[in-house]
Order: sequence, then structure tokens, then C-alpha cells
Amino acid sequence: MKCRVCRGPAVIDVRRQNANYCRDHFLRMCRDQVAKAIDEFDMLHPGERVLVAVSGGKDSLACWHLLRELGYDADGFVIGLGIGEYSDASTAYARTFAEERGLTLHYCNLRDEHGFDVPTAAKATKRVPCSACGLSKRHLFDAAAREHGYDVVATGHNLDDEAAVLFGNVLRWQTEYLGRQLPVLPGGNGFPRKIKPLVRLGEREMAAYCVLTGIDYIVEECPMAAGNKHLGYKEALNAIEAQSPGSKLDFYFGFLKRASARFEGESGGEPVTLQPCERCGSPTPAAVCAFCKLSERSADCEPVALRERR
Amino acid sequence: MKCRVCRGPAVIDVRRQNANYCRDHFLRMCRDQVAKAIDEFDMLHPGERVLVAVSGGKDSLACWHLLRELGYDADGFVIGLGIGEYSDASTAYARTFAEERGLTLHYCNLRDEHGFDVPTAAKATKRVPCSACGLSKRHLFDAAAREHGYDVVATGHNLDDEAAVLFGNVLRWQTEYLGRQLPVLPGGNGFPRKIKPLVRLGEREMAAYCVLTGIDYIVEECPMAAGNKHLGYKEALNAIEAQSPGSKLDFYFGFLKRASARFEGESGGEPVTLQPCERCGSPTPAAVCAFCKLSERSADCEPVALRERR
Repeated sequence: MKCRVCRGPAVIDVRRQNANYCRDHFLRMCRDQVAKAIDEFDMLHPGERVLVAVSGGKDSLACWHLLRELGYDADGFVIGLGIGEYSDASTAYARTFAEERGLTLHYCNLRDEHGFDVPTAAKATKRVPCSACGLSKRHLFDAAAREHGYDVVATGHNLDDEAAVLFGNVLRWQTEYLGRQLPVLPGGNGFPRKIKPLVRLGEREMAAYCVLTGIDYIVEECPMAAGNKHLGYKEALNAIEAQSPGSKLDFYFGFLKRASARFEGESGGEPVTLQPCERCGSPTPAAVCAFCKLSERSADCEPVALRERR
Repeated sequence: MKCRVCRGPAVIDVRRQNANYCRDHFLRMCRDQVAKAIDEFDMLHPGERVLVAVSGGKDSLACWHLLRELGYDADGFVIGLGIGEYSDASTAYARTFAEERGLTLHYCNLRDEHGFDVPTAAKATKRVPCSACGLSKRHLFDAAAREHGYDVVATGHNLDDEAAVLFGNVLRWQTEYLGRQLPVLPGGNGFPRKIKPLVRLGEREMAAYCVLTGIDYIVEECPMAAGNKHLGYKEALNAIEAQSPGSKLDFYFGFLKRASARFEGESGGEPVTLQPCERCGSPTPAAVCAFCKLSERSADCEPVALRERR
């Protein structure tokens, strides 16, 4: 197995590219793919400050690392979500990564600063934990970007993530979501731009990137996400990819090129007027924002111990 | 396990309906679903003559049976495709079905009447056999409908088939195919209308329908189709369906309701002008139709023995 670029011994194969790479050329390929995605979708402009939403997993740490390697002014932000030992360990990986490299990492603890955690919010709302978790993360990333003056929030969603979300949206033809599933969401009205620089790279490549650059990350998946539909969609697409390498890339980028625009403007109706939330000041179409409502509902609920989903 | 309708002992469960049925109410449910599909998509009108494209498998025989049960004037048409013993056995099942019920079955043998068979055509065109097979079947169904005065050709495509084809088209965002993937294709210009009356019923239900009505059918899949991508798509969707019963129905009917129209008119450009094929007289945009070209290419090729795809 020889490197496609230098013909030296290869350490990894990338089947959808029908290519093998040595360590150095694999890392360069990853950087090139991120640079290509940033350019292709006009994700970042010179001088902009980036806040990377860090979980402590391979994708967000690699995303942060890659943005710095490409010369961007990128800091990190990690949230203590209160999902038992999993959250403690995740946060520790993020802290170690930042300390070893002398990088700025912002931190927010959901229970200390907002009086609840994800398991309690899931119980209070009687919905899947991923729902309260996603809402909280989006709110806190936006608020941190406003507070600290970042133009852009970057997340570590990779090609496997985006293809699986797309598959879920297509299976139910959720046209509103399909109209919004883009690698860049524009900012404005008090919201930072959202970007996904890893959309051209798969899960396996991100794990390899971390191993080959010496990034320690939390390997476990979130225990509350076990058994969710998203993982089922990933498995189904993995079977397709094994049969025809490149299927995921074609699926996601074919959507962006030939279908996405057909679903634009689906939320429709009048443009929404935003006003500051009465409680926290975040821009919201209602009097109180969804995060503050979640926080209030959860405050009435006894803190619950972590339970895995079955 | 009790029948949803009469509370008598049930013989089958239909998970996506969260229901069990006794024999009689299962058969009624199948008839009702076919009647609903015919009505919903305006497939058939009173007095129209239907030609059922019969393969000898469960779907096409059940389709024929169901259309007769619902009172339609439906005859059958089977093609000897020359796929070794598989074709002989398939044709025999179709013949037995028709004879036992005193029904009219038209027959055409590809090698005897057109000088080639599917394995030879696959070799001559250096493409997957399903390609030459599909082209030949579409041509011969259309020609038989014209010759014998049928208004409509019905095929036995069931929900699993349509969902898998849709999945394949969506995976590659083949917008032209997405614009045409409908349960009814209008007729005109010398072509019969094409209808798929089984789109509301799954593969497993069609097998049960045959068993419970005493229809003998060929159980084996076509040996030349083994390993094709379509089967991989079916497997992936089966995994999703097992996790969330009803997913396939939502996927296919959600597409028809909320997405299909967005892909209409994709073939675009000027309306195509059709003229009679110089060889066979079928309407075609070219001087010689695709079937006659296939027949000519295959005539130059030594007949080949059946080979399974790997």
C-alpha cells in the first residue's frame, strides 16, 4: 500500500477516493479538503474571529486544529451538559487539548449557570434528550459568540453526520429542514454565521486525523444518544457506502448542487420579527426564548440521574 | 393475535399499520389498498382494457388477481427472456395461473421472435443485464398493448420496489428520474398509460396474498440480478423499517405529496417529436428505436450461457 502522492509506505486508505496516503500527505489532504469547503461555500473571510463548538470528541477537536493549521483565528467553547461522567470526561479532553497548545477555551456549565442539565431537561420536557441538548447548545454557542465578539461559530459536523441528517430529512421529506440543510447558515439579527468546515471529510478520516496528530479525544458516544434514529441512518448509509464507495459524498453534494434550492424558503410566510428575550436578552420571535422556557420547565423538576436510552 | 376487524384468530401482522388480520380481512385489506391507489392516482377508468406485465413472481400474479377481483378487464403478458431455467420456470408459473383461471395470457419469446436473449444482450452491450432486460420489457409491453388494443399496462411494482428505486434516485439526486417516478405515467403518442396498482402494499404482504389465495409463483429472484444495487437499497430500507415501521410508506408517499412536483419537467428542452421506427414501427425520437438497436447489436454476438452476477 503506497501513498498516492509520494509512493512512500501508506498508513491509511480512503476508499471513496480510491487512494492511500502516508501520514503527512493524509494530513495535507485533510487540510486541503477543509480549505476547499471553506472556499467553495464562502465560509470565512480574512480577519474574522471563529468560535469552535467543542465537545471533546474527534470531530470538534480536529476541526479546531485544522482551522488553526489553516491560519484562522479560532478559539474554542465547551459546555458542561451534566451528562454524568461522559460530560466530565469530554470537558477534560477539550481542556487538555487547549492547554497543551496554549489556546483559548471558553467554558459554560449548564447546571451552575442556568440551573439545569440535559438529563433533567429531557425528563421535564418528556422528549428525547438530544432535543433539549441541541437547543441548549445552539443557544449557548450563539450567546457566547455575541458576548465575546466572534463573527462565526464552527461545528465539527462531518460528511457522515450531514449525510445521515439529510437521509433522515429525506425519509420524511421534511421540506422545511431540507431548505435549511446547508454547510453555511448566514448570520445577522444578532446571530453569528454557522459553518461546517468538515463536510468534505468522513468520520473515519477524522478519527485517523486525531490519531496521526496526537489529539486525545473522548471515544465513547454520548450515552443518552444510544439507539437514536440518527445512528440507524448512519448504519444504513454505511452499508450503502461499503457497496459503493463515494455514495455519501455524492448523496450530500448532489443534494447541495441539484436539489437544495428547490426546498428554499419553505418556512414561508412573513419574515419573523425578532426582539430581545425578556429573561436573557437573546433575539427571539417570542417574549421569552426557547432556552429560557426550557430552563424554567427544568427548574421545576428534581435533578435526575443519567439514564441510557434503550 | 386477533384480527383487527373481526377479532377472530389472525394469520398475519402488518407492523406499519400496527394491525393483525385473519385471512379474509387481510385479503380485503389488500383489495382496499389497491382500490385506494387506483382511485387516489386516477389509474383506471370504466371500460378500459388492462394488460398486466406478468413475470411469474408474486407481485405481478397478485396484481393480475387483484385487478380481476376488483372487476377490471385485465389480461396478462409474459416474456420468455432467455435467462436459462429461471425464465422457463417463470413462464410456466404464469401459464399455470392463467390456465387454472381461464384467463388470457399473451406470450412473446425474445430469442424466437427477436433473435436475442437477455444474457447475450448484456454481453453485447457490456452493461448490467438489468439494463437490457428493462429496455426489452418496456418495448414489448408497449408493442403488445398497441397490437392487442389495451389502454393501460399494469406492473406489479410494490411499495418496497418503489421506495428502493426512490432511494437510489435520491442517493444520486437524479433529478430527471425523480421527476418521472410516479405511480401513473400518462399514455399518448402511441404509448399506453403505465400504472402501478400495488404501490400501497409491501413485498411481504404480496407473498402472503399469494399464499393465502393459493397462487403458485416463482420464489427465486432473477439470478442475473443478484448483487445489484437495488437489492442493497432494499436491505438498507428494511433496516430503517424494522427500526420505525411505516418509514417506507412515509418515504414514498411523502415524496409524492411534498417533493415530486419540484422535480417535474426536468428532462426540459423542446418537446420530443416521435416518428415510427424504420424497423418495427414503434414510436421513437430516432430513426431506429432503442430496442431494435439492441436487437441488432445482440445479433452479432454468439449466444452466451447464463451467468450469475457477482
